[in-house]
Amino acid sequence: MTRKKVYIYDTTLRDGTQGEGISLSSEDKLKIAKKLDRLGISYIEGGWPGSNPKDMEFFLQASATTFTHAKLTAFGSTCRAYSDPSEDANLNALVASGAQAIAIFGKTWDFQVIEALRTTLEENLRMIEESIAFLKSKHVEVIFDAEHFFDGYKANPDYAIEALKAAERGGADWLALCDTNGGSLPHEISEIVTKVKAELHTPLGIHAHNDGELAVANSLAAVYAGAEQIQGTMNGFGERCGNANLCSIIPNLQLKSNYDCIGELITRLTKTSRYVSEVANVVHHPNQPFVGRSAFTHKGGMHVSAILKNAKTYEHIEPETVGNQRRVLMSELAGLSNVLFKAKELGIDVDKDHPQAKNIVQEIKDLEHQGYQFEAAEGSFELLLRKAFTGLQDVISLDSFKILLEKRGDQRVTCDAIVKLNVNGNVCISAAEGNGPVNALDNAMRKTLEDIYPDLKNVHLTDYKVRVIDEKDGTAAKIRVLIESSNGENTWSTVGVSENIIEASWYALADSIRYALLGKENDALQTASQNERKGILNH
Amino acid sequence: MTRKKVYIYDTTLRDGTQGEGISLSSEDKLKIAKKLDRLGISYIEGGWPGSNPKDMEFFLQASATTFTHAKLTAFGSTCRAYSDPSEDANLNALVASGAQAIAIFGKTWDFQVIEALRTTLEENLRMIEESIAFLKSKHVEVIFDAEHFFDGYKANPDYAIEALKAAERGGADWLALCDTNGGSLPHEISEIVTKVKAELHTPLGIHAHNDGELAVANSLAAVYAGAEQIQGTMNGFGERCGNANLCSIIPNLQLKSNYDCIGELITRLTKTSRYVSEVANVVHHPNQPFVGRSAFTHKGGMHVSAILKNAKTYEHIEPETVGNQRRVLMSELAGLSNVLFKAKELGIDVDKDHPQAKNIVQEIKDLEHQGYQFEAAEGSFELLLRKAFTGLQDVISLDSFKILLEKRGDQRVTCDAIVKLNVNGNVCISAAEGNGPVNALDNAMRKTLEDIYPDLKNVHLTDYKVRVIDEKDGTAAKIRVLIESSNGENTWSTVGVSENIIEASWYALADSIRYALLGKENDALQTASQNERKGILNH
Repeated sequence: MTRKKVYIYDTTLRDGTQGEGISLSSEDKLKIAKKLDRLGISYIEGGWPGSNPKDMEFFLQASATTFTHAKLTAFGSTCRAYSDPSEDANLNALVASGAQAIAIFGKTWDFQVIEALRTTLEENLRMIEESIAFLKSKHVEVIFDAEHFFDGYKANPDYAIEALKAAERGGADWLALCDTNGGSLPHEISEIVTKVKAELHTPLGIHAHNDGELAVANSLAAVYAGAEQIQGTMNGFGERCGNANLCSIIPNLQLKSNYDCIGELITRLTKTSRYVSEVANVVHHPNQPFVGRSAFTHKGGMHVSAILKNAKTYEHIEPETVGNQRRVLMSELAGLSNVLFKAKELGIDVDKDHPQAKNIVQEIKDLEHQGYQFEAAEGSFELLLRKAFTGLQDVISLDSFKILLEKRGDQRVTCDAIVKLNVNGNVCISAAEGNGPVNALDNAMRKTLEDIYPDLKNVHLTDYKVRVIDEKDGTAAKIRVLIESSNGENTWSTVGVSENIIEASWYALADSIRYALLGKENDALQTASQNERKGILNH
Repeated sequence: MTRKKVYIYDTTLRDGTQGEGISLSSEDKLKIAKKLDRLGISYIEGGWPGSNPKDMEFFLQASATTFTHAKLTAFGSTCRAYSDPSEDANLNALVASGAQAIAIFGKTWDFQVIEALRTTLEENLRMIEESIAFLKSKHVEVIFDAEHFFDGYKANPDYAIEALKAAERGGADWLALCDTNGGSLPHEISEIVTKVKAELHTPLGIHAHNDGELAVANSLAAVYAGAEQIQGTMNGFGERCGNANLCSIIPNLQLKSNYDCIGELITRLTKTSRYVSEVANVVHHPNQPFVGRSAFTHKGGMHVSAILKNAKTYEHIEPETVGNQRRVLMSELAGLSNVLFKAKELGIDVDKDHPQAKNIVQEIKDLEHQGYQFEAAEGSFELLLRKAFTGLQDVISLDSFKILLEKRGDQRVTCDAIVKLNVNGNVCISAAEGNGPVNALDNAMRKTLEDIYPDLKNVHLTDYKVRVIDEKDGTAAKIRVLIESSNGENTWSTVGVSENIIEASWYALADSIRYALLGKENDALQTASQNERKGILNH
């Protein structure tokens, strides 16, 4: 059975940037456009060249770039009321952008024509038809974005259809039906698309927003009813609750329905999704379907043992299909099977009869009872396993520290730390200040350690979380600190628990450094003894 | 037209805690349960009492609590193969939990019976029927959670239906159909629920997961096909990609379809949703539909002017319906009305022409820009308003503090603080130790203050939360500390922000004390001058 083709129209670079806190430079946009092309996206909407010079700049750069799969697309609006399209600055800017395809939006909701455009219903139809006819005379592909189409259709179906017919007469190649306010329900989309399909001959598209958490379902409903183009954004970026999330729509269509969007390039989906978040400098939502870090993550011990028997017991698709991977977390529900799975993942060859296997499960349970939590601290967990199974030794340990914090009136707090560390048997002392006690501690430690392990210069704290754990049976509230660190390539998280926030931070910090130095213990020993000879270490 | 009732079954406290990074103490669970009850939720699933002592502890506390709307519900599994339900420890723990309703899951997918349970198809049917019959003999309401039902039905519809019939014979009050792997599409859910409805007489429920970003749509599809109970979690918490998000399902059903779930309590939705995230110490997703901070936020200049003309041009519902509010980035309108509303709530008589009104809106904006957030810090917010509108003065302020932390080897950290406070114009100095820097600071402050304000002896810190805020335009990461305090009767929360965790804690701590002393400022002055005469205060 041949698969029906659905064209993916990405508007991350235009509608996606309307999202709060998302802002992309021309260079960012070009980088993302190249990745989207490599993902097999059919249309890349780059911006609104008539609205600002930054967008025009992007089009001038992008139209000089060769795209393999994608048509570079520019966005704009119909001409103004009672004006001639050929004299419209916005329409001329679209043509000048060099884009291969042009999307223009127009009103299809009578209320909007009167309230927002403040013109007549007839004039609006002329604006749509003539604007499209003008663009078609320039030999570009034209998409008509029917703004507020579903709300318009519900209010006045005849007029909404008239507006589409005007676009069809103008020669539009696509009629994209927009659920601009994002409030439609899937069955409404389904019914309305079916009716539109019966009255028009031009291929249909769908442009959904996620205000009801239904943008993916609404996009699928439109496709099942006959739409052949889906407009959306990577990771669902966009204003308010975002646009339809292409990272979920594509696999639902390709892996679960008989459609094709980007073919085998779907294995690039996870990578591309994360790349876009990184360039936009926003957190990639771990629970994001298909591509999130937690999308195929298993926590419960019972689930884990079932997963080991047969993955399809708790996974709807194979994670590799979309370029993602399975993860197994440790939690208080942890059992031996979790530990063994995790060890295997880390390349530690061990079976359930290993003499340490039972001890380590007990140790994890004890630590969890104290308030440790390893599911968000995989770095600390890996250190535990390596200590148990491969005899890993702590490369650094604490001799002592002192921290002095001082604040006077409205002045900033000053914060100084003195740290004595034992590094492979050598005690080294150093002092530093910081903008907080943990920062001062970190700075003081690094002062010595970076001399011995220059790689640590690339390691930075990227997140720091503190939580009071209300263990009712304990005597005093404990504090759990989670630290996330990165060396630019990898990210790892470590944990510390204590009644004292600084001590808890110290444990997490020490683990972070130990993790960073994994595999470098021998270099360390060597460098340490060299440094000792050079007199760098002080007792 | 009367609305059809749909029963909302919340499993935030059980399935929600399977989510990565989500862990709730018994106290957290009880706090959340009370808020869910106030939201009008019908069933609150609190945990699995047979699986761990922490969950049993929760049930013992919760079953002593009076809920107005909700039935406290316990979760567990059917008895084991070839065992007698009345001798099953798990089933007996369920009964002992004191819950009014019990949900037990069983297998309905033949592949799962054979692969995971490793028993016969017949034995599985007996386990379901007899386990339910046993629970029904204890006079509790019983929900049968048909695990993997949709995958099971697709693989072997006859057996899946047989399993439901066994539950029906056992006397189940509800058959909840689970899309355990979260991979089903809405039209599949719709077809299968319709078929099940035709073959069984017991009311149906739906339990969806979000692996295809379709959990909300799938839950709605089930309801449209006749299901009357929806299982889900607040904010969609849950394993992998989360469970069906009740915060989206409820408004879609109540505001857009002819169903009733929680009636007029829906205006509490936003507040409750944010409260749950705060207690779980996870970020409340700003783009979350209906309840997110950005859900009704308008950025584009064109949208904003349209919104000001008529909100329905870019909003699918009125934000107030769900207790949320419109935000217009760059306009002050939203802020002012919010401040006036809050002031009125506190009994402060003030209108928009008050000379301080604009200043306070600007001050709040500035503070929010610095990283303050007042939604979970109403105590600090109230102090701000009282300072602006009623001329409240800070009863205490800081002269200086010094904190010394010290750790040697494996010994505990020692922690000493010296604090100089200005209390109504008198400087008092005191020193104390603590099990952490904040605790030492708190103890030192109290040493002086409790002499002057004996009521403070009843005030305790009940929660302390820290979050790093990554202000994108800022130069250094800031830290936000939220403190919750209680005097046994009332609870209030305060906030502090700084680059330094101790300074941020200090701000929150000082606000907590100031709040505790609200209305006692005059006693203070009096006692302070008396004490001065007695020589208690030292300069």
